[in-house]
Amino acid sequence: MTSVNRPRGVYSPVVTPFTSDLLPDHERYIRHCRWLIEQDVGLAVFGTNSEANSLAVSEKMTLLDTLVSSEIPVDRLMPGTGCSALTDTVELTRHALSLGANHVLMLPPFFYKGVTDEGLFRSYAQIIERVGSDALRIYLYHIPPVSQVPISLALIERLLAAFPGVIAGVKDSSGDWSNTQAMLERFQPQGFDVFAGSETFLLATMRAGGVGCITATGNVNPAAIVQLYRNWQSADADARQAALDATRAVFARFPMIPALKAAIGVYSNEPEWGVVRPPLVDLTPAQRDALASALRDIGFSMPGLEVIA
Amino acid sequence: MTSVNRPRGVYSPVVTPFTSDLLPDHERYIRHCRWLIEQDVGLAVFGTNSEANSLAVSEKMTLLDTLVSSEIPVDRLMPGTGCSALTDTVELTRHALSLGANHVLMLPPFFYKGVTDEGLFRSYAQIIERVGSDALRIYLYHIPPVSQVPISLALIERLLAAFPGVIAGVKDSSGDWSNTQAMLERFQPQGFDVFAGSETFLLATMRAGGVGCITATGNVNPAAIVQLYRNWQSADADARQAALDATRAVFARFPMIPALKAAIGVYSNEPEWGVVRPPLVDLTPAQRDALASALRDIGFSMPGLEVIA
Repeated sequence: MTSVNRPRGVYSPVVTPFTSDLLPDHERYIRHCRWLIEQDVGLAVFGTNSEANSLAVSEKMTLLDTLVSSEIPVDRLMPGTGCSALTDTVELTRHALSLGANHVLMLPPFFYKGVTDEGLFRSYAQIIERVGSDALRIYLYHIPPVSQVPISLALIERLLAAFPGVIAGVKDSSGDWSNTQAMLERFQPQGFDVFAGSETFLLATMRAGGVGCITATGNVNPAAIVQLYRNWQSADADARQAALDATRAVFARFPMIPALKAAIGVYSNEPEWGVVRPPLVDLTPAQRDALASALRDIGFSMPGLEVIA
Repeated sequence: MTSVNRPRGVYSPVVTPFTSDLLPDHERYIRHCRWLIEQDVGLAVFGTNSEANSLAVSEKMTLLDTLVSSEIPVDRLMPGTGCSALTDTVELTRHALSLGANHVLMLPPFFYKGVTDEGLFRSYAQIIERVGSDALRIYLYHIPPVSQVPISLALIERLLAAFPGVIAGVKDSSGDWSNTQAMLERFQPQGFDVFAGSETFLLATMRAGGVGCITATGNVNPAAIVQLYRNWQSADADARQAALDATRAVFARFPMIPALKAAIGVYSNEPEWGVVRPPLVDLTPAQRDALASALRDIGFSMPGLEVIA
């Protein structure tokens, strides 16, 4: 079991199940979260793969309430609370803290492009001031391929100096190992925890002193990813990494979020799992069958999912 | 006066004044809106230049309530209601319609990048279905430099076929005249109204059969832009366009939104107008002085602003 005090290990941006009417399906959500927790995967709810920015703040707050009232351990949550609007980010972050979820993953405001480090610094500073809690721990969410608003090394340095303790780490979803490496070298020694943005860089991140990964495929392949996290120093670590890469490669042949949901639908025999909110598009039946077939070919399974489902 | 039935002419994405505590300043907002209306400029509130995506949906709904209760003519409003989350867009659009503001400018969902036309079609279709009002008129907001989610000609064609009447027009802020031209040629004859995304293309748009422009600098230079709109067929139209371009060029030397607000602050003698929400950064005093000086050099003025302020 990972530490309850400081997030480490494998987290998953939990996919958000919808009903056919596109509303969050709380019952199915809780079941999926329980299954992930049983695999020792932490819940980075409201990440990119959660379709978080297709949900209203009120919908996210209600989902958080449901998680906590369903006795999901609050110390295993790392909710994404960064929204486009300053006031939304403050409201959602305060709500998370009010429930005891003190570790949050925070996108920068992502509508305006070409904004300056000064503007992003002011954004995080305003949020920290307005949230006004010593318990707050912010993990910066660097995902320039989607947000198009990068979090530079210079910005991290400035934030760490201004808000030591509060600025707790990063999820680096740049896909650029040299950037992750620079974060690990410059900031991890200061207690700024670097999570790889996917399991692709899990082994490399652990070898360079990082603390784990937060990964989309944690939704479907949690046990194997956790095994590499636990055994990264063992002789077969590279082979484990290669096996994880092979599984990820199958999902990567399809649009990732619809593919994750489709796979859960196939393995739980609950096809409604495939529903996504626009602007995403669910897999076609042909795509779903191709995915299922490719997963069978590599002997993929989701142990325990059937029992919980 | 432009038609009350269908938007035409010059609209401005109304800049949103903030108090020093970064809250919307309703009193100053209403004054600015009244000044624009007196210049015959329509109010495209909650546009990019309004910092709309730095505001929560509830803040925007309250501002709309204030506008309507302040007797701002509702037929001169074209609120921006497109948010990242489907449910937010539906809520804000329904609120606008409940107040009688039936013409809305709608961004596509802008968090996910590389989404398909199918996904964007489903997004607009879901919004139209959920809003569920025959009164709804949607102006598509194409601003790929910021949203990074373009609205293609093929998507417009499909939306027009599926929702004739409801899909009413476009603001083209691509900055690409060939794209505006294609929209004018293909869709304007079907009653799909094309607004240029700035006054830079106002004359060209009018000559090609379009209906006007929705422009940031409408906040500061409304009278001159309206004069070109009214006189686009007169002999001095090109000279008027050149004069507008020269004024815009001064603002374009600075970050646009902070510069617009700083200029209003200078000409109204209310420096608090300069406040922006992060991630934007207000002009430095030196930048503000340079802007003021450059505006003086071209004989720029904001007639009537002092009286209203």
